[in-house]
Amino acid sequence: MSYQIPRGCQDIFGDRSYQWQALENILRHICELYNYDEIRTPIFEHTNVFKRENDSSDMVNKEMYTFTLPNSKTSLTIRPEGTAGVVRSFVENKMYANPDLPVKMYYMGPMARHERPQKGRLRIFNQFGVEALGEKSPYVDVETIALAYTILSTVGLKDIKVCINTLGDDASRAAYRSALKAYFKPHYDELCSDCKRRYEQNPLRILDCKVDHDQPFMQQAPSMKDYLNKESKAYFQTVLDLLDTLEIPYEIDDKLVRGLDYYTHTVFEIVSMNKEMGAQSTVLAGGRYDGLISYFGGPKEMSGIGWALGEERLLIALEAENGPLAQKPGLDAYVMCLDESARTYAFEILTQLRAYGYRCEMDMQGRSFKSQFKAVDRMKAKTAILIGETEKAANQVAVKNLETRKQESIDREDLINYLDSLMED
Amino acid sequence: MSYQIPRGCQDIFGDRSYQWQALENILRHICELYNYDEIRTPIFEHTNVFKRENDSSDMVNKEMYTFTLPNSKTSLTIRPEGTAGVVRSFVENKMYANPDLPVKMYYMGPMARHERPQKGRLRIFNQFGVEALGEKSPYVDVETIALAYTILSTVGLKDIKVCINTLGDDASRAAYRSALKAYFKPHYDELCSDCKRRYEQNPLRILDCKVDHDQPFMQQAPSMKDYLNKESKAYFQTVLDLLDTLEIPYEIDDKLVRGLDYYTHTVFEIVSMNKEMGAQSTVLAGGRYDGLISYFGGPKEMSGIGWALGEERLLIALEAENGPLAQKPGLDAYVMCLDESARTYAFEILTQLRAYGYRCEMDMQGRSFKSQFKAVDRMKAKTAILIGETEKAANQVAVKNLETRKQESIDREDLINYLDSLMED
Repeated sequence: MSYQIPRGCQDIFGDRSYQWQALENILRHICELYNYDEIRTPIFEHTNVFKRENDSSDMVNKEMYTFTLPNSKTSLTIRPEGTAGVVRSFVENKMYANPDLPVKMYYMGPMARHERPQKGRLRIFNQFGVEALGEKSPYVDVETIALAYTILSTVGLKDIKVCINTLGDDASRAAYRSALKAYFKPHYDELCSDCKRRYEQNPLRILDCKVDHDQPFMQQAPSMKDYLNKESKAYFQTVLDLLDTLEIPYEIDDKLVRGLDYYTHTVFEIVSMNKEMGAQSTVLAGGRYDGLISYFGGPKEMSGIGWALGEERLLIALEAENGPLAQKPGLDAYVMCLDESARTYAFEILTQLRAYGYRCEMDMQGRSFKSQFKAVDRMKAKTAILIGETEKAANQVAVKNLETRKQESIDREDLINYLDSLMED
Repeated sequence: MSYQIPRGCQDIFGDRSYQWQALENILRHICELYNYDEIRTPIFEHTNVFKRENDSSDMVNKEMYTFTLPNSKTSLTIRPEGTAGVVRSFVENKMYANPDLPVKMYYMGPMARHERPQKGRLRIFNQFGVEALGEKSPYVDVETIALAYTILSTVGLKDIKVCINTLGDDASRAAYRSALKAYFKPHYDELCSDCKRRYEQNPLRILDCKVDHDQPFMQQAPSMKDYLNKESKAYFQTVLDLLDTLEIPYEIDDKLVRGLDYYTHTVFEIVSMNKEMGAQSTVLAGGRYDGLISYFGGPKEMSGIGWALGEERLLIALEAENGPLAQKPGLDAYVMCLDESARTYAFEILTQLRAYGYRCEMDMQGRSFKSQFKAVDRMKAKTAILIGETEKAANQVAVKNLETRKQESIDREDLINYLDSLMED
């Protein structure tokens, strides 16, 4: 019987794990500069946290890992994205009472969607995202976008741009929705089955449809910008002006409506123009949501904004542009045990070196000198520490500097000092 | 309608998130010194990865989050622990072919068990663990225990000891199992229902039972040490000698059999004697397993050893001993916006400061001077940067050093240099 990883999942280990750590260290560091705190929510939630009334998204309707345990009535769902859990926690923990709004939080970790696996799209994937909750202001929108842009530039994505649009406030969106329904009505029979559902639930999402995208009638569809009221127009204009001030390059894309139903006002994506990622590939996406906090029982009219990126996709994009983000560091010392009778003595020295902060390894297999020396190479050790019966008897070790190839006998009590000065060079 | 976190789960946010990060940074750092690489396996696996034949543990029999999606025959289980997924990955990715054995890996992340929630025992909890796979040697056992002991000492647990036992090799364990069955046979009817099952599947685990623990016949039960063959005794003695060499305090506990069925030879726990954690509380536990790698289809006779700790429980123990492990760092600067007309100017400066690596915040709510100044206090800012119409007009800012209470007007172009020298002091 064979035991395999579930379809659409991956193990991360060895050299690749260092790329993940490097990425996450940068993400954490920049969030710290922007005064975002981390939040960790459960990997599953009650299903109604994700499955909200009238939600037309594929994610909610087709792709969720939803289950009910035997002898339980509670329907649970492995989180398919991060925002809902964060907003649930914001409300449940009354964070809206914080005097300093918005409350700014980032999250990272595994999410699951039962999609058809393809390159850069896994069933268990790692999402990193941020939410700024409780204060509606174009400055908050642009602060959020600036954070996203800074992160992507810092990790090394070069050819990126912000695509931005507004969905306006509720009134603007209602007017636009009516216009879209009137426009699509004569084409209803030509719409795909998903879009027929969207026609009733959220006709904006028809604009996003990958199936109907090339239908001739799509080109002439009404544009959001013609249905924005004065307030929504002014809000969006301030956002654009602030992006100009911060010199963040952007492009207005009035077909951008985003795959989730809760967005209002500003929506945006950051795309990579790197060819390895496809002609143009979304690396990061987000937007403002006016209804979500009150939906979870928080204060009415309280608004939030956030974005998320897939860490797997980002690492693919980075590798295509620059090669690996980080590699496994070499060892400070590899302890070579040359006689079995000296093994305990060597093991003591190994443990002592680690206690002094040196990254070390020792042969545990009783291999030949030659074979151990190959391990020294593989592990890119700066020094080899040779220990045999002679060294043990003299309470010494032999230290070979792998850079200079010089070897010296050192008294055991002097070893740490010797290495300290050798590593300083 | 209310939306609540699932029972037995918790959100981690705000100040507490910094304790988690501090803990995980230490864990990662010490693993790096010991040459352990990180591995990340999926949060769910095929159920047979966890549910192995003849497994008598409660975890596998009662506590797993197992589900099958509609229109699928694949039974999946959210990982209840980390070892099985790591060993599955080790075999599936043929890591056993690595010339440098053991392959040493650590993991951390959420796991789920459907238990009755209680203090320090959550349904979704975060486990950190290590595995050293592919080389069976008392030196590997003790290296693993030394890593555990170093980690717990470094994070600040003071009153800890290693409890250790051996379960011997297969032959020793078979002899002991027969002796236990013969001994418990006359008491069979007095055993709890779980132990009746254990009697058939794995009578060693009867010794571990919390229900039958105080039965009078438990005291006289045969002891493992009387059934060890020569090789198993010698192996264990070397482990103990090496612990002595490294001056790691331990106690032999011949009732220690561990809750999982796959252990052989060395098993151990590290317990905290801190009263806040109960009379004596297990913080970390592990052992050697001889059958697990071949069970997953890897080389026969290949052996592994590992241990795990619950991060939640460890943080409770640490907080009881020393208070919080870390706190949210204060801001370098809080940007106070004193006139709405200067908001964009202030926002530009905020963004510039962050680009230069300063951790900053700015009022986004248009609050009064007094109210913003309270925020400066709450966020433990080192400086307040005051910006109003006057400063904007003069292309300046006012910097108030919150330590000295001194305030100075600084030209915008000099601000970074000014802060650099101020922060150096």
